[in-house]
Amino acid sequence: MANKKQLRIGLIGCGFMGRTHTNAYKRVGDFFPELTWSPVLQAICSRNESKVNAFKDQWGYTSAETDWKKLVSRDDIDAVDICTPNNSHAEIAIAAAAAGKMVLCEKPLARDLKESEPMVTAIEKAGVKNTVWYNYRRVPAVTLAKQIIDSGKLGRIFHYRANFLQDWTINAELPQGGDALWRIDASAAGSGVTGDLLAHCIDTAMWLNGGIKDVSAMTETFIKERMHQLTGKVEKVGIDDACAFICHFNNGSLGLFESTRYARGHKALYTFEINGENASIRWDLHDLNRLEFFDYADEGIVRGWRSIHVTDGDHPYMKKWWVPGLSIGYEHTFVHQAADFLRSLETGEPCAPTFRDALETQKVCEAVIASAAGRSWKETGVKI
Amino acid sequence: MANKKQLRIGLIGCGFMGRTHTNAYKRVGDFFPELTWSPVLQAICSRNESKVNAFKDQWGYTSAETDWKKLVSRDDIDAVDICTPNNSHAEIAIAAAAAGKMVLCEKPLARDLKESEPMVTAIEKAGVKNTVWYNYRRVPAVTLAKQIIDSGKLGRIFHYRANFLQDWTINAELPQGGDALWRIDASAAGSGVTGDLLAHCIDTAMWLNGGIKDVSAMTETFIKERMHQLTGKVEKVGIDDACAFICHFNNGSLGLFESTRYARGHKALYTFEINGENASIRWDLHDLNRLEFFDYADEGIVRGWRSIHVTDGDHPYMKKWWVPGLSIGYEHTFVHQAADFLRSLETGEPCAPTFRDALETQKVCEAVIASAAGRSWKETGVKI
Amino acid sequence: MANKKQLRIGLIGCGFMGRTHTNAYKRVGDFFPELTWSPVLQAICSRNESKVNAFKDQWGYTSAETDWKKLVSRDDIDAVDICTPNNSHAEIAIAAAAAGKMVLCEKPLARDLKESEPMVTAIEKAGVKNTVWYNYRRVPAVTLAKQIIDSGKLGRIFHYRANFLQDWTINAELPQGGDALWRIDASAAGSGVTGDLLAHCIDTAMWLNGGIKDVSAMTETFIKERMHQLTGKVEKVGIDDACAFICHFNNGSLGLFESTRYARGHKALYTFEINGENASIRWDLHDLNRLEFFDYADEGIVRGWRSIHVTDGDHPYMKKWWVPGLSIGYEHTFVHQAADFLRSLETGEPCAPTFRDALETQKVCEAVIASAAGRSWKETGVKI
Amino acid sequence: MANKKQLRIGLIGCGFMGRTHTNAYKRVGDFFPELTWSPVLQAICSRNESKVNAFKDQWGYTSAETDWKKLVSRDDIDAVDICTPNNSHAEIAIAAAAAGKMVLCEKPLARDLKESEPMVTAIEKAGVKNTVWYNYRRVPAVTLAKQIIDSGKLGRIFHYRANFLQDWTINAELPQGGDALWRIDASAAGSGVTGDLLAHCIDTAMWLNGGIKDVSAMTETFIKERMHQLTGKVEKVGIDDACAFICHFNNGSLGLFESTRYARGHKALYTFEINGENASIRWDLHDLNRLEFFDYADEGIVRGWRSIHVTDGDHPYMKKWWVPGLSIGYEHTFVHQAADFLRSLETGEPCAPTFRDALETQKVCEAVIASAAGRSWKETGVKI
Repeated sequence: MANKKQLRIGLIGCGFMGRTHTNAYKRVGDFFPELTWSPVLQAICSRNESKVNAFKDQWGYTSAETDWKKLVSRDDIDAVDICTPNNSHAEIAIAAAAAGKMVLCEKPLARDLKESEPMVTAIEKAGVKNTVWYNYRRVPAVTLAKQIIDSGKLGRIFHYRANFLQDWTINAELPQGGDALWRIDASAAGSGVTGDLLAHCIDTAMWLNGGIKDVSAMTETFIKERMHQLTGKVEKVGIDDACAFICHFNNGSLGLFESTRYARGHKALYTFEINGENASIRWDLHDLNRLEFFDYADEGIVRGWRSIHVTDGDHPYMKKWWVPGLSIGYEHTFVHQAADFLRSLETGEPCAPTFRDALETQKVCEAVIASAAGRSWKETGVKI
Repeated sequence: MANKKQLRIGLIGCGFMGRTHTNAYKRVGDFFPELTWSPVLQAICSRNESKVNAFKDQWGYTSAETDWKKLVSRDDIDAVDICTPNNSHAEIAIAAAAAGKMVLCEKPLARDLKESEPMVTAIEKAGVKNTVWYNYRRVPAVTLAKQIIDSGKLGRIFHYRANFLQDWTINAELPQGGDALWRIDASAAGSGVTGDLLAHCIDTAMWLNGGIKDVSAMTETFIKERMHQLTGKVEKVGIDDACAFICHFNNGSLGLFESTRYARGHKALYTFEINGENASIRWDLHDLNRLEFFDYADEGIVRGWRSIHVTDGDHPYMKKWWVPGLSIGYEHTFVHQAADFLRSLETGEPCAPTFRDALETQKVCEAVIASAAGRSWKETGVKI
Repeated sequence: MANKKQLRIGLIGCGFMGRTHTNAYKRVGDFFPELTWSPVLQAICSRNESKVNAFKDQWGYTSAETDWKKLVSRDDIDAVDICTPNNSHAEIAIAAAAAGKMVLCEKPLARDLKESEPMVTAIEKAGVKNTVWYNYRRVPAVTLAKQIIDSGKLGRIFHYRANFLQDWTINAELPQGGDALWRIDASAAGSGVTGDLLAHCIDTAMWLNGGIKDVSAMTETFIKERMHQLTGKVEKVGIDDACAFICHFNNGSLGLFESTRYARGHKALYTFEINGENASIRWDLHDLNRLEFFDYADEGIVRGWRSIHVTDGDHPYMKKWWVPGLSIGYEHTFVHQAADFLRSLETGEPCAPTFRDALETQKVCEAVIASAAGRSWKETGVKI
Repeated sequence: MANKKQLRIGLIGCGFMGRTHTNAYKRVGDFFPELTWSPVLQAICSRNESKVNAFKDQWGYTSAETDWKKLVSRDDIDAVDICTPNNSHAEIAIAAAAAGKMVLCEKPLARDLKESEPMVTAIEKAGVKNTVWYNYRRVPAVTLAKQIIDSGKLGRIFHYRANFLQDWTINAELPQGGDALWRIDASAAGSGVTGDLLAHCIDTAMWLNGGIKDVSAMTETFIKERMHQLTGKVEKVGIDDACAFICHFNNGSLGLFESTRYARGHKALYTFEINGENASIRWDLHDLNRLEFFDYADEGIVRGWRSIHVTDGDHPYMKKWWVPGLSIGYEHTFVHQAADFLRSLETGEPCAPTFRDALETQKVCEAVIASAAGRSWKETGVKI
């Protein structure tokens, strides 16, 4: 450890994502010992002083801040990791880039496209290392899907379908806003499931299948009013509870996407499937260690969907962990992204998805929201 | 048998559907002995004389015809069953109704809405018994879904999603047209997957969840030209190879539908899922004896999707068959519909779906095709 | 039909198996039209006159008998099909063979080995066509398993495991004996799950993997006394409610078998799995159209169990039925065996499993019961 | 952290288990911050100096030793954690106990019963805290199974079945012995799959269903000779490659157990199922976040096996991790056991399974091996 280069992290936000990222930094060295860079938990930042201090103590940060501007300006911080609600991503990222810090940002980039574009400009102008935590790319099974697709096994692609189904906001008594529920407060989140869930589906989709060209979408807010935790009043719900769209990809394939928080029975069911001329692939977050693969090249009478338990040493990332058959979980995706980010410091390569990559996803989200509002097809402008 | 009332069937078309219907008529009496009506295989009709005679001999029809008009006019025929390609449904049905025959018609009603409306008018004017073979309503698991929904267990409905995925036309060398491949010939079929597959999904959906209000659709023809078996020339493919749409139901829930013949790995995967406030249901044709059911009323720590093996005596239709745990298959859905049709002769009740019911499905198909062509939302006009 | 050779069937027993066999005879001609022999429902026999007449009327038998001896002696009967409780199999089969009839017998051959041996002697001495209805061999997925094994894809076999789990006798109030419940009356059935369920597992196992050499077994009767329907008195239960055994096959592989009627949650879960050096196979009656297959020869990173939906035209028996993706059910196994029996009349080949084949299964059952009684390993004497 | 009591760990063995335990110690404080004890990585020990130093550096141990006797005698060690091959467990545990150290020991306790008994005597005489790492008890789904069973939901138990199937030693070229392959060297491991895999199944089984009374077992060594890595010579293989047994539990239920390293297609498939009068449970390590549960009390027509995704806050251990629907993996079971061990220091309660508990499992293993050798039933002597 002593002779590793230290990457001093200043992390902002100590909610759910603050925990997953911090855990990733603490674990990455144990499992990726070959890395020459080592993350250091230099500072944690959150407005609530007692909360940030408790987090600092629990996780072992060296220092705590309550003002992110102060953190961003500290000389002993190399990289700023943004785990705050969406409405502060832009301001923090731009300031951090201006201060010459590397920037790691939770997804989505920001509340909307207008906020996102200057972030990319700022990051690229500053020329700082950056990445956006679309963590599901680094589920080993999903990375394997990418490998299979890149190998050409699928041939011409006809179809892509994905959904992200949850059921945690069905209760009308659930309030909106505040620390725990900012995801159902439009001013903090920008959108509802579109930015929270579909953004993941879109990022994965465009990584695997190229750009989405145009969309026709619908959104719905099933519970129209909820008590707001910050005002104490019943207020209009501004987010989309559900969103679905059909689309064309630039490669001519058809896409179908859906997300909701009103699919009773699904806690966090993120699935995707891609159908090619010669083979197909599907995946499901609830059983994240498996990838299903159908290969038409198999002999006819024994042809069938294969259930691949993606836990072998030659599967992506898996030689770092245990032995074949033994599962890893959700949190490992963040460890993998942390490892890849640290490796990118060695290689000088970007660590995808970069802010620019994430901007493409934001364009699709923007087109989706606009399409739903206008009940019409929208071009996304995505060129990849 | 001797003291049963005889229903003399004249069946037109001896392809795949001719076989399933004939089989249903032959078996229904064995398993539903309480019925007072008994079908009699009076006549089979098809243009090809040698083929129709072979079919007659194989299945035990009393007589064969090569001209459907002759069959429709025979005095010894009580009911005409139409198993021909879609382009002849209207003419035959109208003639049969005019001749005072009961009419049973394969789905979809016809190639399009314009052809379908006069059929309903004719049937209703004649006042004849009628039904359309949307057979999947009578998979016991699907009928059970209907029972559960009708019991109110689901509460307010938020989502409905369905797809019907096949992969049998991916090969570009497959020709179009002729007896075996009329389904990929637009002049015979009217549409591609919309009428062939989505029509099933729509029928089930509106039976379970009420009318579809409006749609935004896309269609695609992946293979643009195929050799036509009747002309021997390479001709433009006029059907939709794939179709997907998003929609609103009249009850405020959101819908998502997709069908294709280009989903490598899926032979005939018809699935649907419905999410309510209190419970959810899903089903899959590939494992048709199972229904999955999630009930939020279950105690939290042991709550989960239930896999119901729908083979008990108290499950719909199942006391007629074997013992718990023993599966039935695809063909039984036709036996059930035949039984229900015969029972409707006793009770005087309609046998759903009637021509009028099927017209509603046709309206949605029409709106889907129009929406895809115009890249815009379309109202379906469905009022149920 | 007219120019087919007629096989006049006299079927004894109009319970569950009487129905499945009768159905098979009625359907086989429709789906296997190439057969030169055609079964004729000549006579149905059962002691209860009103019941046998109702069965005759429902299913369309030409005549009814109440005395099986009379049926066996009728000149207009070519084949006797025995669907009675196990305790009458031997007497009927021997008499039928003596009368020169072909004999088809429900499994197991008889209550025990002592009863079974003279049956085989009688059948072979008479030289009559015969078969025993171990119907699960003719589930298409199971037949496919046999094909795969015979192709050598599995290599050296290490393991075979099977179970047959039900839960229908858990209720202590369920009586024993009588027409419906003879399976839990030792005097009628001989044994409990050993002859009823394990016999199926053993027949399949030895067909797929060769003879079972020796066994160590245990049996249990969980409910010790039940009211007997014939005497009206509470009587000791003589059958085994559950039975499990470990064994060696003649080929050196290890076996594990279990059956019970006390496995809450399983209606009729018959599963088997075979593990070879190069590949493995497993199957489950609850999803009988699927076969799972693992091939180590597949490329490592995409290796996984394949779920084969055994519904294609090149799968065993399936070209006779519908189209790919459309399921068949339990009853079709009997249609397949009827077809194979009729074909064997053309070819002169035996229709496996013959009485002699079934005797081997009986030997294993006998060894199992003896091993459990004596708490010791028993050799089966099976040489195949 | 500062005001936590420190538990200074001396861990012996830096193989697979050394990694899982070390990881557990490093993570437990982050996720169980309420614990008053905190583990400190005081010393790592292994005979190979370069290897132990590399491990020390990678994982952050304070010191390294190459002689376990030295480690055991160090004053700055509070607890000794034994992760060595089975043949050194006894000597180390006895010495550590004699030195007054707490002892944590990888399973199985030792190579056989004779080695195990003095360990328990020594531990109990010393009165030191102890636990044995039968980690699968602390898969949340398995802990939930225990809760459900303890709640009485299952009623009288009829059946328990478990297997642990792997396929990693099928290749005859795989050598035996040495650091990586001591598990297939009888002198190091004692037994093969019996101690390595079945011991897990037995521990879980007796925890869930009480003591195993008697067994009838068989074992097999499929590959009789392998090159030995320590001698360089082809030597007889002394371990059991496969083992299966039938048994009675003290509560009258029947058991069936199997393990092998020759089940092609299974990497680490540990499954168990328990059938009670009123409900049943089953679980599978390959999908470790799920528990399947069947409750006969459910309304009949919607009764089915429930697939419980055990990731909710009210599921065992899960409020410590992420949010509903997000999986954890294999390694978390060790974190849970570490947490429970630390908690036991606060409460003064034992941390099950203790050495005494593990001795009961050893008794069953001993009886299994003896039964297989003698081809006879053996009493285990287990009284729980």
